[in-house]
Amino acid sequence: MTAEKIATRLYLPAALVPGSAVALDAGLSHRLRTVLRLSPGASVAAFNANDGEFLCRVAELGRNRGSLTVESRLRAAEPEAGPWLLFAPVKRLRLEWLFEKGTELGVGAFAPVMTARTQPDRLNSERLLAHAVAAAEQCERLSVPDIRPLAPLNQVLAEWPAGRWLIFCDESGGGIPIAEAVAGLPAGAAAALIVGPEGGFTQTELDALANLPFVKRAGLGPRVLRAETAALAALAAYQAIAGDWRSLRRR
Amino acid sequence: MTAEKIATRLYLPAALVPGSAVALDAGLSHRLRTVLRLSPGASVAAFNANDGEFLCRVAELGRNRGSLTVESRLRAAEPEAGPWLLFAPVKRLRLEWLFEKGTELGVGAFAPVMTARTQPDRLNSERLLAHAVAAAEQCERLSVPDIRPLAPLNQVLAEWPAGRWLIFCDESGGGIPIAEAVAGLPAGAAAALIVGPEGGFTQTELDALANLPFVKRAGLGPRVLRAETAALAALAAYQAIAGDWRSLRRR
Repeated sequence: MTAEKIATRLYLPAALVPGSAVALDAGLSHRLRTVLRLSPGASVAAFNANDGEFLCRVAELGRNRGSLTVESRLRAAEPEAGPWLLFAPVKRLRLEWLFEKGTELGVGAFAPVMTARTQPDRLNSERLLAHAVAAAEQCERLSVPDIRPLAPLNQVLAEWPAGRWLIFCDESGGGIPIAEAVAGLPAGAAAALIVGPEGGFTQTELDALANLPFVKRAGLGPRVLRAETAALAALAAYQAIAGDWRSLRRR
Repeated sequence: MTAEKIATRLYLPAALVPGSAVALDAGLSHRLRTVLRLSPGASVAAFNANDGEFLCRVAELGRNRGSLTVESRLRAAEPEAGPWLLFAPVKRLRLEWLFEKGTELGVGAFAPVMTARTQPDRLNSERLLAHAVAAAEQCERLSVPDIRPLAPLNQVLAEWPAGRWLIFCDESGGGIPIAEAVAGLPAGAAAALIVGPEGGFTQTELDALANLPFVKRAGLGPRVLRAETAALAALAAYQAIAGDWRSLRRR
């Protein structure tokens, strides 16, 4: 594994081409210079979903700018088509935890939705993206999950893409156990999961979700879970049963 | 559900007998009086694993003391024999998350273990218990998970109880996918899960674990998970496939 040789993995959305140079912005330059105490000549790995992961060398490193030279490819680009996660925003600290853990668990896109009982005005996308990037760097993903803009639940459902299943995590006690719901998906199907806000979905929302043809209604056991616990636990169950946990780590 | 009628659930380890009074300690009296702003006559629910859950009424409520009168039984005691979770202590905030979420996910006992790469001296059991109690109150458990004293891994393994399986979450890429490992357990078997410290198990520890007859070696997919993410995700997969998520919430 590259992680054993190169301690630092950086997400760089710019094109990574062996022999070329990549500029570092002020934030990354600061991190390499002041936080990680690297100097020109140090090795780092840089990655993105389009190009894969590359061994790079620090070329210049100033207070607010710097650059890397891209050397050789460590890992080819590969699809990471993780499930979408639809969720109603919760308090800041719990949301940041959700983005960190959801990224580790392979979320393809975070899609915040407004429900009748959602408290609005709490989404700092830039800060949440930073948490997702840090988690992607740590967990050896090549991609960083998309973060969709906050949208009303009924709009998200009305514009639902063909061919993607939605596992509706129903805290009201409806549905079938999630292991059965997930095992019943067609092999390789695109999927998303949705969890409700802290106060739960309203009856109108429950009925709307339950009647959609792309929805599988699933229960998460006998206890009342916090929204972010439900999201992560459902993701883990999905990945274990139908997702990429059916393969193991490269050794 | 009782939760819709009585907003406050209190864990009270004292015997709960209809018609009797139960004393409240200074902490609980403060919480009812100052945080929840309750007065004598208010209804609360009190529970513990031995007796079940009861409708109670606030009898007295002073600054440092108070009492409840136990009225009628809301829910009979029932076994909640959740899996044990063996883990190497991580930093305080991550440990508190683990206790909150692990309690919601039905952990029966938290068993911290010392491994070669564990940083010691970080376990505030009293504070962690408070997190577990708060989560048990919120998620409608009747029991609060046990918290075992920190013990060396090899001692815990040497004293392992007969008949309990140990799912060894192997971040090194060994083992079989966790869904297969868990599905292979005998129906209704007692179980535990173990996750390694941030730096991983040493080769000696990996070999010792892998060779034990009660161990199932399981992988958690292609990404490198933080210790507490691995613990929670493995718990969710276990509960979904072989644990109490095969039943649903009472409606």
